[in-house]
Amino acid sequence: MPVITLDGPKMDKEKKAKLVKAFSKSASEILGIPEHAFVTIIRENEMDNIGLGGKLLSDKK
Amino acid sequence: MPVITLDGPKMDKEKKAKLVKAFSKSASEILGIPEHAFVTIIRENEMDNIGLGGKLLSDKK
Amino acid sequence: MPVITLDGPKMDKEKKAKLVKAFSKSASEILGIPEHAFVTIIRENEMDNIGLGGKLLSDKK
Amino acid sequence: MPVITLDGPKMDKEKKAKLVKAFSKSASEILGIPEHAFVTIIRENEMDNIGLGGKLLSDKK
Amino acid sequence: MPVITLDGPKMDKEKKAKLVKAFSKSASEILGIPEHAFVTIIRENEMDNIGLGGKLLSDKK
Amino acid sequence: MPVITLDGPKMDKEKKAKLVKAFSKSASEILGIPEHAFVTIIRENEMDNIGLGGKLLSDKK
Repeated sequence: MPVITLDGPKMDKEKKAKLVKAFSKSASEILGIPEHAFVTIIRENEMDNIGLGGKLLSDKK
Repeated sequence: MPVITLDGPKMDKEKKAKLVKAFSKSASEILGIPEHAFVTIIRENEMDNIGLGGKLLSDKK
Repeated sequence: MPVITLDGPKMDKEKKAKLVKAFSKSASEILGIPEHAFVTIIRENEMDNIGLGGKLLSDKK
Repeated sequence: MPVITLDGPKMDKEKKAKLVKAFSKSASEILGIPEHAFVTIIRENEMDNIGLGGKLLSDKK
Repeated sequence: MPVITLDGPKMDKEKKAKLVKAFSKSASEILGIPEHAFVTIIRENEMDNIGLGGKLLSDKK
Repeated sequence: MPVITLDGPKMDKEKKAKLVKAFSKSASEILGIPEHAFVTIIRENEMDNIGLGGKLLSDKK
């Protein structure tokens, strides 16, 4: 029962559906585990809450 | 200082209090670690942000 | 498809089985979600890899 | 700087390389973020450390 | 490409910027990895969603 | 009861102790929460288990 998580930006529902489909399909093929066994959790983060190299993403743009 | 997390659906405060109590109590008894040492984090997720078997939960209902 | 994780100490298989049973059962009852839907991940950590209040657990004992 | 994690079974290096490639490529295309920005963390778990529906995976096989 | 996460309380942007700076700087010095390689994710939690020793933080104050 | 995690490379105990001290101290000062309240979890990862931009770290060196 593998669990995949993505910490990324805000996104619309269509993108979420595509991500869940793409991750489950490719992991199922590579690992030989049925696609229905995969759980995916999408975490949407504000640009203020992600830091890269000592700076907030919101201060980089 | 064990840490327990739950990624689940939206829920009211009464359910959160019951979960935190139940998880800490049973883990304390099973592991022999004092109940006050457990930290529990409850993450509430939208049905759009959880995928099961290649589909969003919100598209399964 | 809720996901529960526990970050705790090294433990034997019997304790793991009890934890998975206890967490799934109580969360199922509290949230009204079938027990078979819960995924639990147990992470066993060395005492050197957990800090509490600025000190490693392995330096507290 | 999105972060993808997979909690799955033990696997060989070839499978890891394929997973990292597949996840980064599809997430890059779907989200419109350059592929080089993705970090992927693969966590390999013993069958004793994953529970499904109240039972350890190692007791299901 | 180390990843640091903090699960803490709600906070303002200035505190987030300071945390990201402090974590990246000290981890870079201690581990000998360039500061620009660190990704930091800040998760802000409601007091209702954190349990300590069997009680919600929001019931402790 | 904030929780800090670091996913990084293999490291010796001295580095772990320094990380836990540095993270707890700076987060305590910035957030105004007593240092003894912080839990830190260090996850050491093989270079084969971290991907950056579609490639394993172990294939980049």
